[in-house]
Amino acid sequence: MSKKILIIGAVALGPKVACRLRRLDPNAEITLIDKDELISYGGCGIPYYIGGDIPELKGLYSTIAHQIRDTKFFLKNKRVNVLTQTKALSINRSEKKLLVQYLKNNKQENLEYDKLVIATGATPVRPPLPGADLPNVFVLSNLHHAKNIKKIISNGKVENAVVIGAGAIGIEMAEALTDLWGIKTTLIEMADQVLPTALGRNISKILEKELKNNNVTVLTSEKVLQINGNIKTGVESIQTTSSNIPCNMVILAVGVRPNSELAANAGLALGTNKGIFVNQLMQTTDPDIYAGGDCVEITNLVNGQSTLMPLGSLANRQGRIIATNINGECEHFKGTVGTFCIKVFNMGFAKTGLTVNQAKNSGFDPVYSIVTQSDRAHFYPDSKFMYMKLIADRKTQKILGVEACGQQGDSVKARVDAVAPLLQFNATVSDITTIETGYAPPYASAMDIINNAGNCLDNTIKGSHKPIDVIDFLRKFKNRKIKVLDVRSNIQAAPFVKKYGDIWINIPQNEVLDKLDKIPANEPLYILCGSGPRSYEIQVLLASKGITNTRNIQGGYGMVLAVQGPLI
Amino acid sequence: MSKKILIIGAVALGPKVACRLRRLDPNAEITLIDKDELISYGGCGIPYYIGGDIPELKGLYSTIAHQIRDTKFFLKNKRVNVLTQTKALSINRSEKKLLVQYLKNNKQENLEYDKLVIATGATPVRPPLPGADLPNVFVLSNLHHAKNIKKIISNGKVENAVVIGAGAIGIEMAEALTDLWGIKTTLIEMADQVLPTALGRNISKILEKELKNNNVTVLTSEKVLQINGNIKTGVESIQTTSSNIPCNMVILAVGVRPNSELAANAGLALGTNKGIFVNQLMQTTDPDIYAGGDCVEITNLVNGQSTLMPLGSLANRQGRIIATNINGECEHFKGTVGTFCIKVFNMGFAKTGLTVNQAKNSGFDPVYSIVTQSDRAHFYPDSKFMYMKLIADRKTQKILGVEACGQQGDSVKARVDAVAPLLQFNATVSDITTIETGYAPPYASAMDIINNAGNCLDNTIKGSHKPIDVIDFLRKFKNRKIKVLDVRSNIQAAPFVKKYGDIWINIPQNEVLDKLDKIPANEPLYILCGSGPRSYEIQVLLASKGITNTRNIQGGYGMVLAVQGPLI
Repeated sequence: MSKKILIIGAVALGPKVACRLRRLDPNAEITLIDKDELISYGGCGIPYYIGGDIPELKGLYSTIAHQIRDTKFFLKNKRVNVLTQTKALSINRSEKKLLVQYLKNNKQENLEYDKLVIATGATPVRPPLPGADLPNVFVLSNLHHAKNIKKIISNGKVENAVVIGAGAIGIEMAEALTDLWGIKTTLIEMADQVLPTALGRNISKILEKELKNNNVTVLTSEKVLQINGNIKTGVESIQTTSSNIPCNMVILAVGVRPNSELAANAGLALGTNKGIFVNQLMQTTDPDIYAGGDCVEITNLVNGQSTLMPLGSLANRQGRIIATNINGECEHFKGTVGTFCIKVFNMGFAKTGLTVNQAKNSGFDPVYSIVTQSDRAHFYPDSKFMYMKLIADRKTQKILGVEACGQQGDSVKARVDAVAPLLQFNATVSDITTIETGYAPPYASAMDIINNAGNCLDNTIKGSHKPIDVIDFLRKFKNRKIKVLDVRSNIQAAPFVKKYGDIWINIPQNEVLDKLDKIPANEPLYILCGSGPRSYEIQVLLASKGITNTRNIQGGYGMVLAVQGPLI
Repeated sequence: MSKKILIIGAVALGPKVACRLRRLDPNAEITLIDKDELISYGGCGIPYYIGGDIPELKGLYSTIAHQIRDTKFFLKNKRVNVLTQTKALSINRSEKKLLVQYLKNNKQENLEYDKLVIATGATPVRPPLPGADLPNVFVLSNLHHAKNIKKIISNGKVENAVVIGAGAIGIEMAEALTDLWGIKTTLIEMADQVLPTALGRNISKILEKELKNNNVTVLTSEKVLQINGNIKTGVESIQTTSSNIPCNMVILAVGVRPNSELAANAGLALGTNKGIFVNQLMQTTDPDIYAGGDCVEITNLVNGQSTLMPLGSLANRQGRIIATNINGECEHFKGTVGTFCIKVFNMGFAKTGLTVNQAKNSGFDPVYSIVTQSDRAHFYPDSKFMYMKLIADRKTQKILGVEACGQQGDSVKARVDAVAPLLQFNATVSDITTIETGYAPPYASAMDIINNAGNCLDNTIKGSHKPIDVIDFLRKFKNRKIKVLDVRSNIQAAPFVKKYGDIWINIPQNEVLDKLDKIPANEPLYILCGSGPRSYEIQVLLASKGITNTRNIQGGYGMVLAVQGPLI
């Protein structure tokens, strides 16, 4: 007799399980259930549909061969039955039945299963703000939201928009609204930086600057108190702790919570973050029930903690494993290393592993390097600066994370993706100093930025490199209580010396040894060059002459420009 | 007393050792020796100088801050002494002395050392061809060659050029000559494909097509017999086994051999390929003599064999390790996984590990997948096809190599670099199916091409996927003795059916189940779709109906187009 497989949820993981299982078992009875009528779509593409990169909504639920992925498609091409507009109400585990309700006629029915898959996804959080239910206040997680938002925008009715929450979706939406539609957009974030769970402060500062450079108003450390407006004409303004911002549209992008009620009500265990608990086989606490995608918790392989990681890419990988295991094999999903990337206007950002704060909170003693370097051989014409932060545990030298950004996004991704798969193998700083990635002048330097980030971290851990984070430097510099030793050429440094007088000392690298007497030996000295290596050499040289109260400004003036802009 | 360090060779590894050592040890006496007067240059940039991407030769020996890296630069900035035009003649190991000759005045001198570093590089092979010494027959390994070549080209005296050897340098030179200068260029390779030591036949076929599409004449399996010309006016033509090719210039790019004579004459051991033997500390058989860069052999970490890998990137990594170890620490250079990338006109190519043939010759039983897939989410506007080959050992499932190419080179590099660092950790197919790289629609698909290459290989190893390599398919198809089952839409397939008649059967994927009677069950059937997944699904479906004599054309029609071009 053929196996009956029920799959609740038909967006990402659900269809993946169904299609893979069909290929493994030609006879299984496979049924996908979804409360919506739109299924199997690329939800991550929604901001690009709204921003106009993807002209039609159906682009998000078509195959590469332009077939629409609907009920008929699944039936004819995949021999998978899909019940749309069908809600899963409860699971009877002892009888192995799922009670569903057909939303068209409200009838209920018990469906039998041999194996059940829960792929119920996550729901955007609607914060309990006064006015959060006003017209033109949107959340964004499915194609209906997408259609509604694009409709009112394309009617030209939105002049000012506010996006609440500077996570990935909030940022992508801020870009979509500003870039194509020219809507004056304000992005509000409660934390003190954008992308607070993905990036540390340096790279996130560059991201924030890129948003601002492209006319997005960014407010961090800002709390929304109330959404003002009226129930007929919709939202009119946002009241925050510091200001009142007029707007015709609000996007709530403060995060998602896993849809785990169905599982919880059936007595299945949840994890520490209220996602469904699964083992490495992607089984819930009932071995006949699998779960995956945005509704489950998985293990962060860097700190061992249970985490939510709602990403379509992970859902797809888990889906394949669930199908394999339903078919009687034994494949493991070990967890996530937290790899992430995002395009923001003209820059790409990528990270993997933990941020410095996350590392501290996980009990590590993080130490990091920051490197500014060309993404191609520096003599190659279209080379651009890339910025990288590499984080390791001081004691074990285990690599904990890496963050990077630059104008050529694929090139940024190449560096972070090279480190990401190593994290689960407990790679150390030494593995990064010698990491062997592809080298040719149009794509990389002979000593690539990854290697140099490793070298720099190695020097820091061993004590020869005493760095200061550029953000800490800029804070100190603001008070003008410190001295800068600028080892760039006279021509480059002259305007700084002119502006800042005797707190800005310029001695080009090759003159330092001859002018040691001009270098203050007893007060903190912050050494600067274009991107960091020359100032490091001078730090080492000064140390050999007994001048040790120095700090090397990590990433040099290139990093100053990237996080803040010119000092002159 | 300060340590005396002598370093022979001042191009890539030598300067790296010197500068790193200076930072570690402010007091060491560090001397670089080179027979040339031009030092510390990016040799890999030479083709881009000749091709015009780099306008001036000094771009190759300047720092990113536009400082010329000459003797004075090293003395003032690095406190490293450089003896140019100085030839190392012999090493007296028992007395720890190096005999050198100053080429300016031919005087000889014995220099003392505590530690010696051999960084003598490699020399281009001049094959023993009649005419190889004629004027305008060049090899290409240093800046003098580069200057000479660019001089005669820019005088407009070269209409036709022949490049002998389709390795990386030969290919880059063919592009440089054709692209900027419009020189009619012929690239001749003795092996049956371009880049024979780096790529397998599929991806190399795409590279060959890209060269041809850009007006380079490519001749493979072609042996050069003689270079014709006269000693006054220079080269006139090349005689090969099949033709006589008129030309005014010849570039010999048939490979390099390690400069290991000095070491050998001093009694230091060489490896199996006549490179200097070193241990993981980069020490020769004399613990006071280190060696690195193009003159040494290193371990290929995939097959354990000793190999030559003349790349500036590896030289730099080794240089840092040598300096660290001279300073009394203990860093290891484990070896190479053979990562490589190259830009060829409008495409990027990258690989790591072994090719199928190299894997066979190393005693593995290689099995591979070939995948055609978009490099971004397929709905994202500028997505382009990428082509990937993933190779594993059938028994152990250990990943042996990956090759890829596509129009967005950084994006190609991102995929290969994600796999490369895993090779030394003995990653298996299962690690690739779940490899976690960055996902966002502008940069990748939710199920990335790497994961799909892993999935496809997993299906092949487990037996559900029975592939045929597109090159084998095309060979069989040439004889018209096989039948194709085209499961694309009627519209797409119609011109093929019209042209090829009853050997080209078109049944769209969703009609196959209803038209099983139209499918020949007893003769070999080659299933085709746009890129491979639909044809795989149909192969599985047919198998469940007892039709098992089928092969899935790997990479689909997209791969046919890439390696050969349209069939209609």
